[in-house]
Amino acid sequence: MAETMFLFWGSGSPPCWRIMIALEEKKLQGYEQKLLSFEKMEHKSSEIMAINPRGQLPCFRHGDTILNESFGACLYLENQFKSQGTQLIPDTGDEQALVYQRMHEVLTLHEKLGTISGACIALGPGSYIAGKNFTMADVMLFPQVAFAVRFGLSTDKYPKLMEYYMKVKERPSIQASWPPHWKESPPTLDVLKDV
Amino acid sequence: MAETMFLFWGSGSPPCWRIMIALEEKKLQGYEQKLLSFEKMEHKSSEIMAINPRGQLPCFRHGDTILNESFGACLYLENQFKSQGTQLIPDTGDEQALVYQRMHEVLTLHEKLGTISGACIALGPGSYIAGKNFTMADVMLFPQVAFAVRFGLSTDKYPKLMEYYMKVKERPSIQASWPPHWKESPPTLDVLKDV
Repeated sequence: MAETMFLFWGSGSPPCWRIMIALEEKKLQGYEQKLLSFEKMEHKSSEIMAINPRGQLPCFRHGDTILNESFGACLYLENQFKSQGTQLIPDTGDEQALVYQRMHEVLTLHEKLGTISGACIALGPGSYIAGKNFTMADVMLFPQVAFAVRFGLSTDKYPKLMEYYMKVKERPSIQASWPPHWKESPPTLDVLKDV
Repeated sequence: MAETMFLFWGSGSPPCWRIMIALEEKKLQGYEQKLLSFEKMEHKSSEIMAINPRGQLPCFRHGDTILNESFGACLYLENQFKSQGTQLIPDTGDEQALVYQRMHEVLTLHEKLGTISGACIALGPGSYIAGKNFTMADVMLFPQVAFAVRFGLSTDKYPKLMEYYMKVKERPSIQASWPPHWKESPPTLDVLKDV
């Protein structure tokens, strides 16, 4: 099935990364992909504008179906491949509600990175963001956290968040989708050190 | 089932309204509810802060399960009551993808109301936002459109959008959930007339 999928992506872009994690978790390795450069403005190329008139990445295609919103693509992958790989959205009412709640809180987080430690993030010891299992809420959250850590988020101030980061980082889906340019160049900025 | 549900809401708030439309479409009438006043800052009352530390509406409770993100609550209602009332998310791959895509484009729309007529909105004649049926994407979109219309969006400039507005407005779920204070007071602002 993965061979009919195509992803245009940019390295280190949290929305792109979410889809890549979801593809890994759903055992959809082997999809076609093309890494584009934001620096070279390749996301504004005619190739992309034809698929996504807003000129943004990710652009994800499955057969003739195009999805270029990370939440939409991830929900689609979970629903279309429900019984394959990791179940990212639980069936049980209260567990499912928590996953949906946390998933969409991440959007708020995106708007206000400074509230990263806020009441909206309820990380228990050793837990994931919506309970004891890795879920779609983590697919949404982790790239944002990793992004913040790379750009210098104070690791001392957020011990629970760092514990979460260190644990989730080791997950095969995360390792397989780690931004390639992050491997090549160490983080040099510390723009978030005072957050 | 609806009798175990409780909604705290504010009149005219698009996120609150979305949940109310979804409840109507899923035939979950008869839920408990309480209308709060934003003007009187009732969304910052201790009653709300205890459930939602961010002090925002909607707050939706189903049994012991709390959801206060409109997208999360709507996805939850569709999944938990899939075979009841209107099917808001189709099963078929390409149809489902389009609904998820449009649903999440609405979030972008929320950020940039000025792009309401943009390429992201593909309204064919007589159609809904994700094809020929009313779906979750319409649940997300309609309150935003109605809000824009009330606040003076130029109806001449957006004929397709107005056609959509006039059609969807007549839907029973929309009529049943129409903001009460909009019924009492006509729109007087035209802040969006130049958009």
